[in-house]
Amino acid sequence: MKISILDSTLRDGAQGVDISFSVNDKLAIAHALDEYGVGYIEAGNPASNPKDLEFFARAGELKLKNAKLAAFGSTRRKGITAEEDSNLKALLDANTPVVTIFGKSWDLHVKEILGASLEENLSMISDSVRFLKSHGKEVIFDAEHFFDGYLADKVYAMSVLSAAARAGADVLCLCDTNGGTMPLILYRIVADVALVFPNTPLGIHTHNDTGCAVANSLLAAEAGASHIQGTFVGFGERCGNADLSGVLPSLVLKSGMEVEGNIAQLFTTASKISEIANVQLSASKPYVGKNAFSHKAGMHIDGVLKNSTSFEHIEPSLVGNKRRFMLSEVAGRGSVLEKVKPYAPELRKDDPRLAEIISKLKELEHFGYQFEAADASFELLTRKLLGTFKTHFKLVLYKTIGEFPPLQGELPSTATIKVDVDGQTETTAAQGHGPVHALDNAMRKALCVFYPQLSEMKLTDYKVRVLDQKAATAAKVRVLIESTDATGTWTTIGVSDDIIEASITALIDSIEYKLSKDD
Amino acid sequence: MKISILDSTLRDGAQGVDISFSVNDKLAIAHALDEYGVGYIEAGNPASNPKDLEFFARAGELKLKNAKLAAFGSTRRKGITAEEDSNLKALLDANTPVVTIFGKSWDLHVKEILGASLEENLSMISDSVRFLKSHGKEVIFDAEHFFDGYLADKVYAMSVLSAAARAGADVLCLCDTNGGTMPLILYRIVADVALVFPNTPLGIHTHNDTGCAVANSLLAAEAGASHIQGTFVGFGERCGNADLSGVLPSLVLKSGMEVEGNIAQLFTTASKISEIANVQLSASKPYVGKNAFSHKAGMHIDGVLKNSTSFEHIEPSLVGNKRRFMLSEVAGRGSVLEKVKPYAPELRKDDPRLAEIISKLKELEHFGYQFEAADASFELLTRKLLGTFKTHFKLVLYKTIGEFPPLQGELPSTATIKVDVDGQTETTAAQGHGPVHALDNAMRKALCVFYPQLSEMKLTDYKVRVLDQKAATAAKVRVLIESTDATGTWTTIGVSDDIIEASITALIDSIEYKLSKDD
Repeated sequence: MKISILDSTLRDGAQGVDISFSVNDKLAIAHALDEYGVGYIEAGNPASNPKDLEFFARAGELKLKNAKLAAFGSTRRKGITAEEDSNLKALLDANTPVVTIFGKSWDLHVKEILGASLEENLSMISDSVRFLKSHGKEVIFDAEHFFDGYLADKVYAMSVLSAAARAGADVLCLCDTNGGTMPLILYRIVADVALVFPNTPLGIHTHNDTGCAVANSLLAAEAGASHIQGTFVGFGERCGNADLSGVLPSLVLKSGMEVEGNIAQLFTTASKISEIANVQLSASKPYVGKNAFSHKAGMHIDGVLKNSTSFEHIEPSLVGNKRRFMLSEVAGRGSVLEKVKPYAPELRKDDPRLAEIISKLKELEHFGYQFEAADASFELLTRKLLGTFKTHFKLVLYKTIGEFPPLQGELPSTATIKVDVDGQTETTAAQGHGPVHALDNAMRKALCVFYPQLSEMKLTDYKVRVLDQKAATAAKVRVLIESTDATGTWTTIGVSDDIIEASITALIDSIEYKLSKDD
Repeated sequence: MKISILDSTLRDGAQGVDISFSVNDKLAIAHALDEYGVGYIEAGNPASNPKDLEFFARAGELKLKNAKLAAFGSTRRKGITAEEDSNLKALLDANTPVVTIFGKSWDLHVKEILGASLEENLSMISDSVRFLKSHGKEVIFDAEHFFDGYLADKVYAMSVLSAAARAGADVLCLCDTNGGTMPLILYRIVADVALVFPNTPLGIHTHNDTGCAVANSLLAAEAGASHIQGTFVGFGERCGNADLSGVLPSLVLKSGMEVEGNIAQLFTTASKISEIANVQLSASKPYVGKNAFSHKAGMHIDGVLKNSTSFEHIEPSLVGNKRRFMLSEVAGRGSVLEKVKPYAPELRKDDPRLAEIISKLKELEHFGYQFEAADASFELLTRKLLGTFKTHFKLVLYKTIGEFPPLQGELPSTATIKVDVDGQTETTAAQGHGPVHALDNAMRKALCVFYPQLSEMKLTDYKVRVLDQKAATAAKVRVLIESTDATGTWTTIGVSDDIIEASITALIDSIEYKLSKDD
C-alpha cells in the first residue's frame, strides 16, 4: 500500500510565529510541493482568512501535476444544519477536489470549549461529512485532540471516528493537536484504532511539542496509518508540525515503504520552501541541513574516508544533500588537503606551508572568522599563503559620510574611495542607502575603470552576525557576502568591530575572487 | 529506580560544527549543569585535546554539588597491554571519579576500521574495563554502533556487552552512533538487551540524524534503560545528540519516572548554556523555546484563554518557561488588549483606538518590524497612539564619518549630533569602532547633560538581521537592542535599509523607555 502525504505548510505552517506568506509565496510553495510529488496540499482556511480566499481563486494558475488541493475548515456550528453553515459553504466555494474538516474527539473540549452535548457533536461531524460528500468532495476528517480524547474517554473518541466513517469520510486522521503524546502510547493507540477500523485509511497529524513529531509519525505508519500529515520543513505554531523532510526519507529508506514523492529532491525542495518563507533552514536539520553530513573531528573525517558507515547513516546523495568536511580547530591536515586539492594538487602532507595554513586558520577562527561558509575567502587565503595568488588592486583610502536628516531627495550616505591598480589610481564617490551600500557602489565604480567585467558580477546575499552581543554597538560583526556571475556563485567573509570594515573586507575578497577566476 | 543522566555537552557537544568552547566556557557550563542536577558531566577526551587537559587540571575550582565528572576515551589499542596504553593513562591522569570508554560492537567496523580480529576486540574491551576498575574508577562502557552491530551480527554485539559486563563495567551504554536507527527497532533491541542483562544498568546514547533522538531516548527508558546520555540543548556533530531539554521533562511529566535534576530549572539552564556557547536557542525548541508556548492565531488564543489544554500539553511554568500571545496579522483584539492591560487597563474592545493600534501594527509588521521581541518599542508605540506618552527629546541632526585608514591611534568613526530638549539644544561629537558605536556614544553624551540618570543604563545586547538578503548591501535590516538598568531589562527595535538609521531608531526608543520608566 502506498502512503499518501498531505503537506500543510500553507495552512498549519502559516501559523508558525515567524511565518508570513504572501499569495505569491503560497503559489510558489504549492508549485514546489507539487514538483516534489506530495499527494495533497492543504492550502488554507477560506472561511477565516481573506488571503486564503485569494489563493484559492488563483489556484488554477498552478496546473498541478501530482497534488490535489485541499481546503481546511471546521464542522458545522451547533444548532444549525450543514446547508445553513457559512463555513461549510466557504469550503465548497474554494472549489478544491479535497476538503479537510476537523471535529472534536475529546469529551472535555466538546463540553467546555464547544459548549455542545456529546451527541450534538457527533451529529455535527456526520452531517458535515455527509454534506461535503454529497457535493462530490474527497473528505479527510481530522479528529482534533484524538490521543488526549482516547485517554480521557476511549469509547467516546472511537464513536467520533465511527460517526465520520459512517458518513463516508475517506480518511480518519488522528491528530495529536497539543503535541504531548508519548511515542509508545501513540503507537499503541494507532494500532488499536487500526484494529477497529480495518477498512478506512487512517491518518496521523502530529505536533512537535515534545520533540517526538517525526518519530510519532513513523511509529503511526508502523502501526497501520497510511496517510501522513505534516509540513515540509516543520513550520507550524509553537514547536512546529511533523517535519516531512524528516519523515519521508525514513519511511522510504529505513522502513521500506512506498511513499508519494521523489526523495532525491528532498534537499532542493526543503531549501526552496525555506527560501520562499525567508526562514533559514537549520544547519543541523536531519537529512536536509547543511551539517547533516558534515564532519569536523579529525578522527571522524578519517573514519568516513575509510568507510562512510562509520559516521553516516545513509548516502547523502539519496536525499540530494552532500558530505562536507569542516575546517576547524579540530580539523586535521587531511581535511585541509582535501579542500585545497582543486587548486593545489601538488601539496603534500609534510609540506611546511600546510602547517602554516592550519595555524593561520586557527588564528582567524579564534578572531571570529568561519571559513566553512566562505569557500572563496578560504581559497584566496590559502593561495596567498601558498604564494600562488596575485592581487589585482589595492584599496588606498575611503571616507564615508552619513547624514540625518538627508537632503531632500538624496540618499543619506556618501562614500569617497581611492584604489590603486599597478600604480594607476582612481578616485571616485557614490551615494547609497547606508555607508556599506555607498562604499560598495563607489568601489565598483572605481574598479570598473580597470576591470569592466566587474559589471557582470552582482551581490546576491548579505548577512550580518553580531559575534559578541554583550559588547552592544561596539560588538564585533561577521559579514558574509554571496556573489554571482554567469558561471557561478561564491561566498566571502569579513570580521571586524566596525561593520564598514567587515563588509569591505568581504567585498574585496569577492571582487578579487571574480578577477582571479577570470584570469 | 532513579534514571541517571550523563550530559556530554562538553565532549560530544563540542564536536558540533558551530561550537567552540574556551576552558572558561567549559567551566561555566559544568557549573550550570551541576546546578540543574545531572549526575554525570562528561567533560572531554584528555588524550586527544590539550584544551580538555587544561579543563581537567582546573576542575577542582568547580566544587560540584551534584555531578560527578567523567573523562572520555577509547579502549586500549590492539597489540599492547592496558598498562602500556597512553590513552588509558591519560584517562587516569584526568583524575575524575568516572571514566567513559567506548569500544566497537559492529563486526564490520572491528575488521575494517580497527583492523583487529573479533576476539582481540573483546580482549581490548575487557582488559580496559578491568584496568580502570582496578584503579577505582566507576566505568561507563559505550558500545559504539551497537544497533547497527546488533542487526548485522546479534551474537557478536551481545558478546561485546558481555565482555564489558564481566570485566566489571558499571553501565552498558548502547550507542546509536550514526543516529540512523528507527524508533520501533530501537525499542525492541533495548528490551531484548534488558532481558539478557537484568543485573547491569543499561544506558542509551542517541544522535538526531533521523530526527528521532529524543523519542529514541524515551523509548529506551520504557524498554528498561536507566542511564541516559545526551547534551542539554542538543549540541553535537551533524544533527546533534539527544537533546536533554526535550528528554528530561517528558520522562518526569509524561512517563512519571524519577530522574536526576530539577526540571523547574530547565528553561534557565538551557538558556544559560546557549548563551555561554553563543548559539541562539531555536525559538521552536520543545519545552524551552521562546515559542514553545506561544499562540498566534486568534482562535488559538481564545481557546487557551478558555482552557489551556486546548493548545498546551503542559503548564509552561513546570519547566520554567512562560506563555506568550503574539502580536501578528492574525492576532485578534483580545491579545492586544491583554498586552496593553498593564498601562492601559481602561481600554475596551470597542474603542476605536484599538482598531488604530492593530492597523498600525500590521503596517509596521509588513515593513519588517516584529514586536514579539521588542516589548518596550511596542509599549511606546501603543502609548503614543493612546495619547499617554510624552517624548523627552528630539534628535535634530547627526553626521557620521568613517575613515580608512584611520589616523594612527584613533578610532575609525566619528559622529556629531544635535539634540533638543524642550527648546534647549546640545551639540556634541564622539568617536567609535563603527558609525553606530560613535553615534551611540555621541547621543548619550548629549542627553546626559539633561538626564544624568542615563549613565545608569547600559546596552546589553545588539542584534542585526538582514531582512532581504537578495538586496545585498542595500538590504533592509532589523536591529534589536536590549538595555538594562538596576531595575530591569527592555528590548527595542528599528528597521531601515540604512543600518545607522535602524540602530538609532532602536536606540532612541531604548532611551525614551528608560526616561518614561523613571518618570
